[in-house]
Amino acid sequence: MDELGRIAALTKRFQHPSGDILVSIGDDAAVLRLDGDLVTTVDVAVEGVHFRRGWAGLDRLSRRAIIAAGSDLAAMGAEPRGALVSLVLPDTIGDEDFLAIVNGVAEGAETLPCPIVGGNLSAGAELSITTTVLGVTRGRVLTRRGAHVGDVVYVTGPPGDRALGLEVLLARDAPSGDEAAIALAEAWLAPKARIAEGRALLARASAAIDISDGLVADLGQLCRASGVGARIYVESVPRHPRFEEVASSLGVAPLTCLLGGGDAYELLFTAPPDVDVRDLAVPIGRCIEGDGVEARLDGVAVELGRTGYRHFG
Amino acid sequence: MDELGRIAALTKRFQHPSGDILVSIGDDAAVLRLDGDLVTTVDVAVEGVHFRRGWAGLDRLSRRAIIAAGSDLAAMGAEPRGALVSLVLPDTIGDEDFLAIVNGVAEGAETLPCPIVGGNLSAGAELSITTTVLGVTRGRVLTRRGAHVGDVVYVTGPPGDRALGLEVLLARDAPSGDEAAIALAEAWLAPKARIAEGRALLARASAAIDISDGLVADLGQLCRASGVGARIYVESVPRHPRFEEVASSLGVAPLTCLLGGGDAYELLFTAPPDVDVRDLAVPIGRCIEGDGVEARLDGVAVELGRTGYRHFG
Repeated sequence: MDELGRIAALTKRFQHPSGDILVSIGDDAAVLRLDGDLVTTVDVAVEGVHFRRGWAGLDRLSRRAIIAAGSDLAAMGAEPRGALVSLVLPDTIGDEDFLAIVNGVAEGAETLPCPIVGGNLSAGAELSITTTVLGVTRGRVLTRRGAHVGDVVYVTGPPGDRALGLEVLLARDAPSGDEAAIALAEAWLAPKARIAEGRALLARASAAIDISDGLVADLGQLCRASGVGARIYVESVPRHPRFEEVASSLGVAPLTCLLGGGDAYELLFTAPPDVDVRDLAVPIGRCIEGDGVEARLDGVAVELGRTGYRHFG
Repeated sequence: MDELGRIAALTKRFQHPSGDILVSIGDDAAVLRLDGDLVTTVDVAVEGVHFRRGWAGLDRLSRRAIIAAGSDLAAMGAEPRGALVSLVLPDTIGDEDFLAIVNGVAEGAETLPCPIVGGNLSAGAELSITTTVLGVTRGRVLTRRGAHVGDVVYVTGPPGDRALGLEVLLARDAPSGDEAAIALAEAWLAPKARIAEGRALLARASAAIDISDGLVADLGQLCRASGVGARIYVESVPRHPRFEEVASSLGVAPLTCLLGGGDAYELLFTAPPDVDVRDLAVPIGRCIEGDGVEARLDGVAVELGRTGYRHFG
């Protein structure tokens, strides 16, 4: 397929010009009628920086890219309405690879769910998938600001499992048959945007953030935006039952991975103590006076270095 | 500056959380209150494919990237409301380069005009600037569909000048002091999104498209979407007074560049013959029965090969 053939394939695959989508792929821009305020953000997955081609089929890797972008909508309590996907495709991407990428993007969009309403194709030396997600919110806007001293800190799922899964993929030497390592790698490959949880939190959470740079780093962002400090109880932080064992077998410090590992795509949020959110998340700490994040493990202070996401490339 | 330092610089430069921008840079996503339907599209400028670093300062090249994206909003008759900018930055981009890119993006956004409301930073081997533009339209939507047989075809400016300017930049051997060559290269480096023209056309044009792939290719798209053919009168197509001369001096076929050159960022549109749009554009042809584009030069049919934009990389 040449560029026009590929655009034709995309148009055929993605066109949804119905209902509130007044114009979709195939014109200079998409036109959407929104039933609320627009919530939008952009995210990129670059080969060699965010993923390597050998880790999984390109369909799974592109699927992951759009879900990662959707996770930011989840943190705002937004409902997805559409996505734009811009692909930079090196010569090494043949038609089969191209269709795999397109299929993965389509599948990822279906999980949010929202239609792909536009995009762009370009040549380039480096494969990258840039996703703009478009959602709506009505009335309240859930942001990083709004946490108060005394609020409880929650996570919607294990914040370190996907980072450890990435270590498994990077090591490539997970003992075959080690189900825990395989499950963790699988978790990295197949995140889920916490859209339903985010929407449910709109009325209940005081502040929220998507964990993409690591639990401590992102909690630090939330605290800075809200003007509070936070203390987390490490023993409460959810993780795979064999987290420590797999981490140690890979030479990875379990605590660093648990508290500093990125790519979690779980929501980290705060809620007043009298608000029940245990159906959505696990409590891991509390907002306190001050301006930083501290951690305790069985009552003992944990030294927090600069634990944040590091690009592996 | 590390990644956090760069994000801080961006946040400081771009934050506009006021009026209808409920949340801007610094949260998981931006939130905008729109006074109409959302019009949105994404475009990328990749080093080595869409530009080379030596052609101009990075501020001018990044400025151009956002204006190119804005041109698609112009073709829909939309009013810009915001933009998201995703940068992939190789190691060779130092802090001075980074700030130049940021300044150019800011300046380009100011010309549309609209604020930068969000974005993303990533490492990567290849410099790229991906821009998502967000605009609104109320009531009518101007698209590629809607041209009728008998409508007049117009362009808002010379459709081949910027492509010829690109040839000047690629050749790098424009005789210094050749003012025409310099002016054409300058036109390529400094496009203008025809936002005001697009808005004025909402009530007057029957169909419109941004010329990015070349006059004939984009008119072909408009015709296909509208179900008409078109004939253009080549002698009417506006161009630099010394277009043919500069083209010939570079070994470029003037007609190919005029009719097939991309990167024009002018609007190509149709309007009924009784609607006056001469304040906005130049008539160059007419919609006819059929399904393709034909061209005449002083009454003689011009053979149109496959004249479309070619990536130079």
